[in-house]
Order: sequence, then C-alpha cells, then structure tokens
Amino acid sequence: MDLLSIKDPKFLKNMSIAELDKLSQEIRQFLIEKLSKTGGHIGPNLGVVELTIALHREFNSPKDKLIWDVGHQSYVHKILTGRACEFDTLRQYKGLCGFPKRIESDHDVWETGHSSTSLSAAMGMAVARDVKGTKEFVIPIIGDGALTGGMALEALNHIGHEKKDMIVILNDNEMSIAPNVGALHSVLARLRTAGKYNWVKDELELLLKRIPAVGGKLAATAERVKDSLKYLLVSGVFFEELGFTYLGPIDGHNFEDLFETLEYAKKTKGPVLVHVITKKGKGYTPAETDKIGTWHGTGPYKIETGDFVKPESAPPAWSAVISETVRKLAKDDKRIVAITPAMPVGSKLEKFAKEFPERMYDVGIAEQHATTMAAGLATQGMKPFLAIYSTFLQRAYDQVVHDVCRQNLNVFIGIDRSGLVGADGETHQGVFDIAFLRHIPNMVIMMPKDENEGQHMVNTAIHYDDGPIALRYARGNGLGVEMDEVLKLIPIGSWEILKPGTDAVILTFGTTISMALEAAELLEKEDISVRVVNARFIKPLDNDMMHQILGSNLPVLTIEESVLMGGFGSAVLEFANDHDYQNAKIDRMGIPDQFIEHGSVNELLREIGMTTENVVERVQKLVPKKKRV
Amino acid sequence: MDLLSIKDPKFLKNMSIAELDKLSQEIRQFLIEKLSKTGGHIGPNLGVVELTIALHREFNSPKDKLIWDVGHQSYVHKILTGRACEFDTLRQYKGLCGFPKRIESDHDVWETGHSSTSLSAAMGMAVARDVKGTKEFVIPIIGDGALTGGMALEALNHIGHEKKDMIVILNDNEMSIAPNVGALHSVLARLRTAGKYNWVKDELELLLKRIPAVGGKLAATAERVKDSLKYLLVSGVFFEELGFTYLGPIDGHNFEDLFETLEYAKKTKGPVLVHVITKKGKGYTPAETDKIGTWHGTGPYKIETGDFVKPESAPPAWSAVISETVRKLAKDDKRIVAITPAMPVGSKLEKFAKEFPERMYDVGIAEQHATTMAAGLATQGMKPFLAIYSTFLQRAYDQVVHDVCRQNLNVFIGIDRSGLVGADGETHQGVFDIAFLRHIPNMVIMMPKDENEGQHMVNTAIHYDDGPIALRYARGNGLGVEMDEVLKLIPIGSWEILKPGTDAVILTFGTTISMALEAAELLEKEDISVRVVNARFIKPLDNDMMHQILGSNLPVLTIEESVLMGGFGSAVLEFANDHDYQNAKIDRMGIPDQFIEHGSVNELLREIGMTTENVVERVQKLVPKKKRV
Repeated sequence: MDLLSIKDPKFLKNMSIAELDKLSQEIRQFLIEKLSKTGGHIGPNLGVVELTIALHREFNSPKDKLIWDVGHQSYVHKILTGRACEFDTLRQYKGLCGFPKRIESDHDVWETGHSSTSLSAAMGMAVARDVKGTKEFVIPIIGDGALTGGMALEALNHIGHEKKDMIVILNDNEMSIAPNVGALHSVLARLRTAGKYNWVKDELELLLKRIPAVGGKLAATAERVKDSLKYLLVSGVFFEELGFTYLGPIDGHNFEDLFETLEYAKKTKGPVLVHVITKKGKGYTPAETDKIGTWHGTGPYKIETGDFVKPESAPPAWSAVISETVRKLAKDDKRIVAITPAMPVGSKLEKFAKEFPERMYDVGIAEQHATTMAAGLATQGMKPFLAIYSTFLQRAYDQVVHDVCRQNLNVFIGIDRSGLVGADGETHQGVFDIAFLRHIPNMVIMMPKDENEGQHMVNTAIHYDDGPIALRYARGNGLGVEMDEVLKLIPIGSWEILKPGTDAVILTFGTTISMALEAAELLEKEDISVRVVNARFIKPLDNDMMHQILGSNLPVLTIEESVLMGGFGSAVLEFANDHDYQNAKIDRMGIPDQFIEHGSVNELLREIGMTTENVVERVQKLVPKKKRV
Repeated sequence: MDLLSIKDPKFLKNMSIAELDKLSQEIRQFLIEKLSKTGGHIGPNLGVVELTIALHREFNSPKDKLIWDVGHQSYVHKILTGRACEFDTLRQYKGLCGFPKRIESDHDVWETGHSSTSLSAAMGMAVARDVKGTKEFVIPIIGDGALTGGMALEALNHIGHEKKDMIVILNDNEMSIAPNVGALHSVLARLRTAGKYNWVKDELELLLKRIPAVGGKLAATAERVKDSLKYLLVSGVFFEELGFTYLGPIDGHNFEDLFETLEYAKKTKGPVLVHVITKKGKGYTPAETDKIGTWHGTGPYKIETGDFVKPESAPPAWSAVISETVRKLAKDDKRIVAITPAMPVGSKLEKFAKEFPERMYDVGIAEQHATTMAAGLATQGMKPFLAIYSTFLQRAYDQVVHDVCRQNLNVFIGIDRSGLVGADGETHQGVFDIAFLRHIPNMVIMMPKDENEGQHMVNTAIHYDDGPIALRYARGNGLGVEMDEVLKLIPIGSWEILKPGTDAVILTFGTTISMALEAAELLEKEDISVRVVNARFIKPLDNDMMHQILGSNLPVLTIEESVLMGGFGSAVLEFANDHDYQNAKIDRMGIPDQFIEHGSVNELLREIGMTTENVVERVQKLVPKKKRV
C-alpha cells in the first residue's frame, strides 16, 4: 500500500494477517530507504514493526494511550499515524522529530528522549483515568535496557502495589543501545529460554499432583509449593513478585501470538506485563547482525553494503580524544577506573574496556548509581573517570551534590555531548550542565579549546586531588590539531589569551572560540581591537585575569553554548558585582530561556543569534566609537 | 559499663551474649535519656542496637567498611566508636552530626543523609578493594524503605550482575519514615512470614525426592523444578533472581541468630543479602508502639509519658498551611491529586489522604517516579500537587527538566523545607532549589511572605494553567497571621512593596523578609529610607518594578536564604545586564559557595553573615552619605 496515504491507524483493523505481513515488509523497506539518506534510529524501529502494527490494531489510539519509552522506536508509530510523508525531513531543522512530539500528532501522548520515564507517565495517566472514571487502556512500551533505569524500577514497585489496570509491553531485544548489563538482564534471559508461561504451569501442576500424600510439616510445605506455583522462575516470578501478571515470552514478529496475548492482556485486571521478544534491526542484514550497537542510531548509509556515508577523513571524535587519553594514563595509574552508564560505544571506551576489563564498568542505564559508585571508589583513593553525556548527567544531579561534591571526593566527570547536539533535539541538548553544576560547592568545571588542550585537561583532572573536577567536551569531532607528545598540567582556574586586543574582551570556551576568533578578525578591519580569551575554567574563574580586565575598564562579551540563566556569563556578572566593578560593561551571549529543538548545530546557533556576525555586532555595540584604535 | 569510656569497638569481641544483652539495654537507656533532651532519630536507633553491636563484633571497622544508608540510624555506631561523650551536642551547632561524618571518625567511611546511596557506594568500595587486591568486607546497611529508591534498585541490579563480594544488610523494620508502600514491601512481608530459608529448602528437597520417576516432558520439568528450588518465593526469590545469596529472615534482636548468619555470610562468595527483622523504637514503649512514624525523628520529649516538649502554642506549620489549603480546594476541584515521596506525615497530607484516598499517592522513596507521575497526570488535564522537600527534589532534577518543564505541564510543586533546615545539617539544607530550577524554561517559582499569602499562592498555583509552578515554603512554623476567608489569585510575576523608601531597596522573599523589615526600621533612625519589597516571584521577576527601581537609580540589596551562585540575586544582576542598567548598584546577600552544616537556623545565618545587623551594614555601604534624607 501507499504508506504516504496513511492518515490514521484505523485501517489496520480490517486487514488479514497476510496483508499485515506485507505491510510490515513495506514499512521496513520504507525505513531502510528513508533512513539511508537521513540517518536515524534504524535498528530499534526495524525491530518493532509488527509490535507497533499489533498495538495500533488491538488498541484505539489516541483514546488508548501508547507511551513510547525513550521514543527512538516511534518511527513505525509515526508512519501509522499519518507522518510517512515527512520522513525526508527526519531529525532535520524544522522537520519531523526523532522522538514522540505532542504538537506533531494527537497520537503522541507523551514526549520522550531520556529513557525509563514511560512507566511513571503511565501511572499518572492510569490514576487520571480512574479518578475521571473513563475506561481507556494505558500501554507503556519499554525496552529491556530502559528497565534498568532507577525511575522505571521505582515505577514498577509503585504500579505493582497500586494494582492499577495497565498493560506494560516489555520490548526485549536482548540489547538496548549497547549489549545489556545487569542482573535483570539475566532474569530476562532465563525467561526467554523458559518457554511459555501457561505450558510450564500446566506441566508443573501435573507433576505436583503426583506427589504422594504426606503429613505434618511436609504437607504444609507441599501446599506452599502449590500456592507458589506462579512464583516459579519459569513463570516470570520477578514481575509476579512485583505484583504484575506476567504474560510471555512471545515472538514480537508473529502477529498471531501478539494478537492472542494482547487480547488476553486486555481482559486481565490489574497491571500486566507482556514480555515480547523482538530482533533489533530485523529485516536488514547489517543491522540484524550488529552485535555492539553500531546500528542503534546511524548517519546516512549505503543500503546495499551497509557502509556508512562518512567524510573522507575527519579529525578524531571528542569522545575518542578524551577516553583514549584516560586509557593511556591508566597504564601507569592503577587508580583509574572508568564508568559509563550504558554508553561504552558512544563514549569510545571500547579500547579501555579491552585493555583494563577489571577497571571498566558499564553499569547500564543507571546514571545515579554510576555517579555514587564513582564517589565510593574515590573514598578508597581510586580515581574514577565517569564518562556521561551532559543531558544524562541531569539524572545524577543529587548524587553530584550529595555524594560527590559534599564529600569533596576526587571524581573526574567527563561531560560528553556538552552544548548543542543537533539532530537528537531538545531532550538531548547539553545546555544545562554549567547552570546546574556551577553552584555546587567544590566543583571545578573546564572545557578545552581543542583536542590537544583536551588531553592536557584529562591529565590535569587525573592529577587533581582536591575534589571533583568536570571536563566538558562537545559532540562530534575535534579540530584536527597536532597533539603534544608530553602531557601537561593546566593550572586550575587559569585562562589563556588567544589573541591580544585593547578595545574589548571576548571571554569564551570550547566550541564557540572559533566564532570569537573569526569575529575578532573581522573587527580588526574596523579598527576594533578585540582580545579573545580562552576561558577554559568555567569554575573557578581566572580571578587575576578578571581583575585585570575589569580593572582596566575593558568591555566584555561572554559567549557560551549553554543557558544564560545562571551560566558562565552570570558568573562573570557575579564576579564584577562581588568585587565592586560597578561600571563594568558586560554583554552575555548564550542560550535564551527556551528549549532548543532539533536541527544542525549551526542552524540552531543562527536561530538564537549566536553567529560570527552576531558577535561582531555585539562587540561593535559594546565599544564606544571614540575609544576605537 | 561506662559508655562514655568506649574508644573503639574492639572490646565487643570478648563479651558474652549475656554481657552484650546488658550492653544493649545500657545503650537503649542512654539513647532514651540523651535524646529526650536533644531530640533526634530515636526510633531507628533503638531498632538497631543489637544489629550494630553484632556488626562491630563480627567485622573489623574501619578496615571493613560499614556503610549506613540514610545514616540517621548511626547513633549506636557513634557510641561504639567513641562518641558517647558528645551526645549532649547532638545535631547542635558545632556539635555531633546526626549522620555519619568522615571528619568525626575513621569508622565513618561514607556520609549520608539522603537515602538509597549505600549500595552504590559499596559497589565502588568493592571494586576499589578488588583492583587493589585487599581483602576487607564491604557491608552496606539499608532499610526496607530506602530499598525502593531508584538508585538502590539500579545498584542491586549492577551488584547482582558483577558478583562482587559484598554483604548487604537489609534492616527490615516494616516501616521506614512512614509505613512503607510498594510491591517490594509485599515481597518482604511474604518473606517475613515464610520462616528460615534453610529449613524450607530442606523440606522441599525431601518433598521433591518423593516425586515418582516420570518420563518425557514431565521429567524435564521435574528437573527444572529441582534446579529452581532456590528460586521459590519462600527463599527470597526476588533477591536470588537479582544475583544475591539470600539469608534470612533473622531476628535482629537476637545475638545468636545475628552471629550465626553473619558468620555464614562472611564465608559466602559473591553478593549476599542478609534479611534482618528489627523493631523500630524497640525498648521504649511510646516509640515501639508508634504506627505512623511520629517517633522516627523527634524533638525533646518527657521520658515517662512520651509527651513531646513543645512551646505552649505555636503558629501552624508551613507544611500544614499549604497542604490544608490544597485539601480545601480539592473538595470542589476534582483535578487535584496529591503525591508525596514517602513524606505523608512530614508534608502534613494525612487529612488529605483521609478525605480523598483515591486522589492521594504516597509513592515511597521515589522522587523521580513521583515527579514524572505528576507529569503524566497533568497530560490528562489533572492538577497534581507534588509535595516534596527541597533537598529531595534534587533527585528529580532531570524529571523536572525533561518531563515537566519541557512538556510545559501543569504540575504544582510544593517545595517543602526550602532554605536552611537546621539540625539535619548539610545533607538536608534546602538551599539549591532556586539555582537548579531557575534556569529551566517554563518554570515559575514563588515564595510567600506569610501563611496568608501562602494560601493565596496555593490558590494561584491551582488555577495557573500555563505550565509548571513551584511554591517554596520553609521548615517550621508560619508567623501566626490572620488568614483571609476568601482565597485570592496573585498575578504571576507581581511583587509587593511592604514598606516605602527612597534611598535604597531591599528585594527579598519568604523567611528573610522579617530581617529586612527590622533592618529598615533601624536604618530609618539613621535617616536612611529603605523600601522593602516582597519579591515573592523568584521567576519571573516583576519586570515593571525592576525597571522602576533600576530606572530611578536606587541601590538594591537582594537577600535570599539560598545559594548566591545562580540564585535570585544573580537573576537581578542578569536583569540589570539584559536591560543595560549599567550603573545599577546592587549587592547580594545569600549563602556563599560552601556546604552549610547543622545548627539552629539563626546560628547558621549568623555564621554566614545574614543577620539584621549585616543587612543594616550592607545598606549603609550602598547608600552614599550625601544622598541620605
């Protein structure tokens, strides 16, 4: 059928299983083709084609609430709810969002991006339904990886207790972004090999009937065994223990199994967990045979070969520069232990893992645990390197405050994907970390101007033993600069003048340094002499340089790819205020008080007025005409 | 024995059980007497007397690592490690901390205050041990309530997977701060009634031997049943499923049981969970018979009667004013649903719970789930009231950003215990919330000057339907002002002039208004005319009033019982900067960049220079002499 003509998923209800199988293949073909051009989360979506069709056939969205955990597996849902025609713009500026988005469709009842939120949202919706007395189904769809997030476990515990009607779909593809870790993973693995619940139950009942009559204590035990039948491992005891009716495991690519089980789930009172086994990347060999998560989310690729379309040669990725420097230092420094919450590939820690398996911990989607585990290591004189994306560090704010900073422990936080991240959009922008870390006592925050300084900062962080230290680095690649052979220590709180100047000063760090330098070049032609400072320590500031700048009454422009409220520019304002530089002329450029959607980083920067031209204009305004050289 | 003479727990190793029982009674007597004068966490500590003695006898602290989750049950540990003589100063300024504190003793290897961190810390310590090749035991002691926190579940999942040697003590007293909720609680309840593990296992083996030989499918099932023996509910299947060896349940007041089980645990490889049943408040009738958590933590009390020593009559508690107003509004407004993460008593939601049981959810220690569940409710047109302590809201920072504010949902957050909290100290001070909430787009933050304004703000929040809104209120009691009968709406972002003045302006809100007014009175005598503004909206600011003040060149002092970095004062600096009030004379009073320890709020304010006298001085400095009236 013509996928572009789909307006509403109602048409599914009249289709035969043969027709649905055909539709599945068409959707797979569509996804493989479209995503080969735009990139996107191909693996997860190929895995949920039949499941998504089955859910839309069995339930009535949007009356019934389909809640996609993480949300990167919502493409099939988007196709079935009338958005196939927008896939050419997927994850592009002003285009289709890569995650559920309420303004796109009434069928998107809950927005995601971060993992493990669906069960809590579902609980809220189930309570709302029961208070209002309506009758809709609430159906969170959560992956086996997302299930290890603490908030999902908090929600399981609460849902099982409250016994609200809810159908949890556990989409178990045996790996999430990277191969899964955790005891829960083993629980699921045992369930997968155990066969169907009902079969086992029947067998067991038969078996127990054969136990000869016994008396006394033994009889009581026999009774208890019979009562406990449903709690046996083979019947999903883990979830049954938590108060759920466990159904499964079922083949997530078999419509008959899916329909039968969902029908049963709809008739079951209280919370139900349907354990669906799917194959990530199903139907596209390169993705289906992927073992490490390369095909979880990709850029454009050649369909025939599965080769990724990449620029001929690119400078090394920021993640690689940082993690590789940590790995090199770890050869001689046995205190170093690397921790990642489920991002060993994204954080480029594979080599570290191979070389130091006993000092590398992928803890699964568990940012809180990762952070406090790092604190625990630090109490014992170890030097934990916690590699974590800026946006996911938000999950561990309290652990950074209460466990790391309050105890002033030597935890080295590598804040990956700091700043705007582009295509993943507003749920993933790393734009809050300065504002949520800067006010925590004992915290040091730095960001390098290039990957050579990046490696020196890693060295500095590893040798810093006065408390926590955070190193921000951007998504994407470095600048391709030459790397020093010998690592240096950068004095804490020391800035660096990149270009001298006498009319104004630009204070900036990391990725925005280039636009500052370009603007300074342009301004030079107008006889405005701009000093550009690599303000590589966001906390503490370089007090001496600040006094020198403000003391000489130079106007200052701060630039940060980060929220303005409470950010670096505010730190500069606070400094001027604390030290009575009452006439300081300061302008702050950064991200305004709004969420920033998806698009290329350059498009987004243009939208919020952060370009070289904007820098030129704002410096021009700061410098009085008479003062210019 | 003389408890004051204890320097080190080694002496326990040579004592008989009779002597230990006697010691237990002496410690109980000591705690009951000391805490009757100072107040403190009497219930939890009376419950762990034997357990703490047993741990110090069986293990060698500080080489072996005893990690007290939450930490309010560490008093017995403090007595046994040489701190009995300091109990007169418990939780007082410069006195003994109510939680483990590393500077107090080498035996305090991990500091707590917030719950559910011990397992992650223990994992860090276990990894450090194994990397270093040392041999110490790592023993986290966690309550059944703390176990429902997401990060504890994340840690359980990871520890079970990694199979590190670790002895987790589950201190199960059937209630944490309030009676427990959650499916895990039911799991534990079933375990408690199930009898000892080993007994049941033996019985079952005997029983299964009696199954006659069968063939085919049935034989395979029989084998699986035998293999799965250890997974039966009655043997702690939940924890066994997660990779732990489960031992218990045992009587936590019986030394023989404790010694025997701990000895067994010490010999067991991999992670062990020892399920210890204790009685909160044991040995002191008023605490032992407490059903709702009144005796969890108390002020001074009369030993004979168990009556609390209270001032004759006090104004209503802030929590009561806010929660009661919500309750009154909930009669007519069916959209209102109250949510608390385990603090129904502290947040004074008992009456609400009684009147609207179907609209009241105590989710257990699960701040992340609580917040996102509120967001889920709001998507369905409900009006969730999330009552949460400021310090615990830190746990839900990402959920506030990603789920509540990003989706701009109508969640009403009641931020209880905002500002300094006093005796609970640095882990509990509610001083970060402005800095971590202010930079989140769509957020509104307000704080009332008195409880009458507080009830109007509740009304305002309930009727606000443009997104999230947070209402801060302090620990302790209101001012005792008269309450209006009819509730009003306060315009969002509107401030109020409390006292006119022409020489300077003080901008402040909440608890610090009184010192501003007092200072203004004193300054009046010096002919300095100070305007005092109730800056009740921290975000958004009152733009009109800000323009009026800065436009007329009045010097400004901001006062906030909150961290200065990124705080309200910084918002005022940002405003002046954004609107080019280049000559604005602004001074900011607030909490400097350090953690604030325990003590009375007034003592702490004095320490950091936030008294009426300090306000007078700083206004004097702001106002040029010639300008004065």
